[in-house]
Amino acid sequence: MKRKSRKVAIVGSGLVGSSCAYSMVNQAICDEIMMVDRTYDRAMAQALDLSHCTDFMGTRTKVYAGTTSDCAGMDIVILTAGANPKPGQTRLDVLDDAKTITRSIVTPIVESGFDGIFVIAANPVDIVTYLVWQISGLPRHRVIGTGTSIDSSRLKTLLSEVFSIDPRSVNGYALGEHGESQFVAWSHVTIGGKPILHILDQHRERFKHLDLGDLARKTRDAGWEIYTRKGSTHFGIGSALAYIARSILNDEHKIIAVSAILDGEYGQKGICTGVPAIIAGEGIQELIELNLNEEETAKFTASCDIIRRGIESLTPS
Amino acid sequence: MKRKSRKVAIVGSGLVGSSCAYSMVNQAICDEIMMVDRTYDRAMAQALDLSHCTDFMGTRTKVYAGTTSDCAGMDIVILTAGANPKPGQTRLDVLDDAKTITRSIVTPIVESGFDGIFVIAANPVDIVTYLVWQISGLPRHRVIGTGTSIDSSRLKTLLSEVFSIDPRSVNGYALGEHGESQFVAWSHVTIGGKPILHILDQHRERFKHLDLGDLARKTRDAGWEIYTRKGSTHFGIGSALAYIARSILNDEHKIIAVSAILDGEYGQKGICTGVPAIIAGEGIQELIELNLNEEETAKFTASCDIIRRGIESLTPS
Amino acid sequence: MKRKSRKVAIVGSGLVGSSCAYSMVNQAICDEIMMVDRTYDRAMAQALDLSHCTDFMGTRTKVYAGTTSDCAGMDIVILTAGANPKPGQTRLDVLDDAKTITRSIVTPIVESGFDGIFVIAANPVDIVTYLVWQISGLPRHRVIGTGTSIDSSRLKTLLSEVFSIDPRSVNGYALGEHGESQFVAWSHVTIGGKPILHILDQHRERFKHLDLGDLARKTRDAGWEIYTRKGSTHFGIGSALAYIARSILNDEHKIIAVSAILDGEYGQKGICTGVPAIIAGEGIQELIELNLNEEETAKFTASCDIIRRGIESLTPS
Amino acid sequence: MKRKSRKVAIVGSGLVGSSCAYSMVNQAICDEIMMVDRTYDRAMAQALDLSHCTDFMGTRTKVYAGTTSDCAGMDIVILTAGANPKPGQTRLDVLDDAKTITRSIVTPIVESGFDGIFVIAANPVDIVTYLVWQISGLPRHRVIGTGTSIDSSRLKTLLSEVFSIDPRSVNGYALGEHGESQFVAWSHVTIGGKPILHILDQHRERFKHLDLGDLARKTRDAGWEIYTRKGSTHFGIGSALAYIARSILNDEHKIIAVSAILDGEYGQKGICTGVPAIIAGEGIQELIELNLNEEETAKFTASCDIIRRGIESLTPS
Repeated sequence: MKRKSRKVAIVGSGLVGSSCAYSMVNQAICDEIMMVDRTYDRAMAQALDLSHCTDFMGTRTKVYAGTTSDCAGMDIVILTAGANPKPGQTRLDVLDDAKTITRSIVTPIVESGFDGIFVIAANPVDIVTYLVWQISGLPRHRVIGTGTSIDSSRLKTLLSEVFSIDPRSVNGYALGEHGESQFVAWSHVTIGGKPILHILDQHRERFKHLDLGDLARKTRDAGWEIYTRKGSTHFGIGSALAYIARSILNDEHKIIAVSAILDGEYGQKGICTGVPAIIAGEGIQELIELNLNEEETAKFTASCDIIRRGIESLTPS
Repeated sequence: MKRKSRKVAIVGSGLVGSSCAYSMVNQAICDEIMMVDRTYDRAMAQALDLSHCTDFMGTRTKVYAGTTSDCAGMDIVILTAGANPKPGQTRLDVLDDAKTITRSIVTPIVESGFDGIFVIAANPVDIVTYLVWQISGLPRHRVIGTGTSIDSSRLKTLLSEVFSIDPRSVNGYALGEHGESQFVAWSHVTIGGKPILHILDQHRERFKHLDLGDLARKTRDAGWEIYTRKGSTHFGIGSALAYIARSILNDEHKIIAVSAILDGEYGQKGICTGVPAIIAGEGIQELIELNLNEEETAKFTASCDIIRRGIESLTPS
Repeated sequence: MKRKSRKVAIVGSGLVGSSCAYSMVNQAICDEIMMVDRTYDRAMAQALDLSHCTDFMGTRTKVYAGTTSDCAGMDIVILTAGANPKPGQTRLDVLDDAKTITRSIVTPIVESGFDGIFVIAANPVDIVTYLVWQISGLPRHRVIGTGTSIDSSRLKTLLSEVFSIDPRSVNGYALGEHGESQFVAWSHVTIGGKPILHILDQHRERFKHLDLGDLARKTRDAGWEIYTRKGSTHFGIGSALAYIARSILNDEHKIIAVSAILDGEYGQKGICTGVPAIIAGEGIQELIELNLNEEETAKFTASCDIIRRGIESLTPS
Repeated sequence: MKRKSRKVAIVGSGLVGSSCAYSMVNQAICDEIMMVDRTYDRAMAQALDLSHCTDFMGTRTKVYAGTTSDCAGMDIVILTAGANPKPGQTRLDVLDDAKTITRSIVTPIVESGFDGIFVIAANPVDIVTYLVWQISGLPRHRVIGTGTSIDSSRLKTLLSEVFSIDPRSVNGYALGEHGESQFVAWSHVTIGGKPILHILDQHRERFKHLDLGDLARKTRDAGWEIYTRKGSTHFGIGSALAYIARSILNDEHKIIAVSAILDGEYGQKGICTGVPAIIAGEGIQELIELNLNEEETAKFTASCDIIRRGIESLTPS
């Protein structure tokens, strides 16, 4: 008996996919990474460049190039290949391209005999996650989108600066669409376990310049701020992917805001959106239903409606 | 200009001190560790044993033996040497021994020119922390006891088993004395950001066998359960020490429940007890005052009273 | 499909076994650790103490207690339970005790359906490793003793101090018995890739006080130096075990001096002794045969003879 | 007393600089990273993107944007900004651009009061390192080029594939120019401490297809293979930078092949080329002089001559 290596395929070897791979190499999250790309040469170049890191790391990760037909033995397939949003476009605008690309990727992966977990970062991520679920035929707990994991991380980073504490001592979520209609569930944001709403109430003078609406806006727009300045965002999202993959591979049961297919949770069904979930060896073990207040519930419903319209617009095919 | 190494002295080279050192070596938390012990040969043996680990680690830590007079250049002095509780004794019973030992250790350290931060695990930790503050004459933010950090960790471990999630996705504190009178602040325990009291309310059937009082008891008694079976507890507390040291050395601003000297916070003054605090480069940057409910406030006050009586019983001298 | 967790059982929950577990928790080397001990309560206490560390770590490891009958699904069983050498005894003196203990442990493990890899630290390690091979009936590449891994680490630590460089930039082995008859293969010791014999030749003045015989003696006696001062050695050997386990679990193919069953290598057969080996997912992938010089070959043969006599003295039964 | 944070500035926020930063964030190598770029917006975008990773990491690193005038308190300035080689150009062709750019960067850094260590990856790295030494006026041990560290890593990766072992169990160096004239010092390549020349001698049949000349060529051309396929190489070199920075910040004394200013070593003076060096808190602590054989010495001299001609061609001004 030789134990099975932990294997991850990354489909899409651009900035997001290769940053995710680099993060996994640096943290020794898995034993093997297979880089896949429409342009095989690019996958090969990334694999080669990444393989030169191992001498500088504590433990090695084998990195090599492959194709969507080689995914049979993978524990996880990470999907980063998609249609990039262009200036002026909303994330939903790129829908049709996304659908065609997703089908062309997922079909050969499933046909190869892949029996693991999909983790999706391709945008519009909520809809692509839904598509992967539909096309793959896998149970919903094995299809996970990065959703608002990255937005939640941006929120925590902002709060950690405002309150001058470690982001890991902040808890809080951006929920709903990874896009314009997302919102921060302030009722559940805590700093060191203390609700932020209590803190602001107690220390009005000290935090009088703190505007939660402004923080929520900055959270939502952070990606765009980066995108307009350097043409892409890839380190944050690459780390989010590595983090989700690690929680699966190590069966960590971490709670992360991901894009999940809802089946009655939060009163929603048949759509995919950002909610907190327990991420473990089998994928999503359970969704966490927060007790959103009235205003937050309205925002959540509105965000779901937007995603639903996106999904409906593409159902025929 | 050569940058200063990160140096930690550990006074007391028994199971707690050496476990703390081993954890720091495994995690590469600092550059140098000086082991100190009443019995110099023991410090030397621990240092030698620990130094043989470095070939197996990602980055090396120099470990050597020294004395309380060699602490001038240290960033942190960790104090684990104290009077061990014996069966039948309460933690407060060992008070007098503790006072004598603490004075004999802290005085030469301060006289050596030490200008860093004390982190104390010696029991009864709340009172020893107070003593170190008094004897050293350092400002209160540079004297930190492990307090209820380990009890809080035990609480999270228990909850992570009950709810089957990662302990880092649980937040919650045991507060007050690291001893019999501690209590769990259930009003601020969250699972993935969701208050546990909401969860129990929503899922009465599912969690009907969950007894919070029982969990609090198990949290409080966990040390004793271990102690009676193996004669010591050292891995958990060793890790707590390493974690606090790392948050100081890396200026992480993590929020940790530590034993801190109160100066008006929670309506208490001139005593030392377990409360959440931001731990950073200068030591305790700020104490977090939770909005305890009435019952919790009563328990906190009662716990503080017990510590105060302990302190008062030793003030003369 | 849910991927199998990485599981390690540690038989013997004393200082060596628990230090090994602690190192693996600190480095997040596996997903689950099962502590086993003749005294179940001790295993339980160690597991409980270790489980309280996870809140302070980057990723969690589940630690629990079990028995030798629960080893069916383990990837690795680490054997630390043995007869401790007493002052005055040589390692070989404790042979008979070791045999009885080893049989009582290995038999139920194999009967439980264990189909993984044994890693042995119990002393006299070369002979216990041989015994485990015989009793278990496993192929030789799946039975690995810590052998001279720890002695090699001690050698590198000594050299790193003499030459003031990182131990990982030193390469070199102590070979043969993990005991009195071991020796350093100076012909293959390199500092940053440069043979130490060249360095000494080139820089006679600078290193005129360096006595290789003395370094070899210190390497051999380091364990004893520690043992006489604190009654045990456990951090170095605990780390060696964790390092070997990691190279197996991650299929790292690291070269480590371990105690391996020889089958013609170095002209030896049917004994077990310390030689460099490639450690990978299936256990020992290949033994490295160094080109020992004449003097070293004589020492190697002499050391093997001692081990052979030990083995022969126990063959009946 | 508050201990000084470990601070690194990265000048040049393109693919190499940002990959280096990402690696340092993933490995928690320092406490603060300042991104600097000709285009301030790009530095800002990279810092923002990188700052969103911390929630997913074990310990946080503050990342922010700054300018060459803000480098006073930095421990290390990493230089990645340079003239990129274009197809058809040799590395030496881009010399004149490099000189102008380097002067414009180094001057304000030195004027800002920077008193730390320069680590240079900008190409042609041997000459830019020499330039930084000249312009900065710092002692030579505080000016370090990545030199053949990346080529040596590529060599080890290739050998680890051929021999199926962990790259960290291989030792070996590419020496001389980080460019066409580099060579592999086969006389000092060891696999698990065993000289590769012995291995090939002993196992002629097994390794009859192994062509050392071909491996040396692949080592030298690996960068180009990547560059032609994806337009840059950044992960390997980013990791090399992080590795050198870590060895400095942790005073690790690792031996790494870097570009160093020679002052008599290897019979060379007043040039900068790739040789093994001990990297510690003060920068280069000592150069390692290998006993190159006749053929290797000739290659080394030839490579130095090429670099010298490059340096001489730019001396005026």
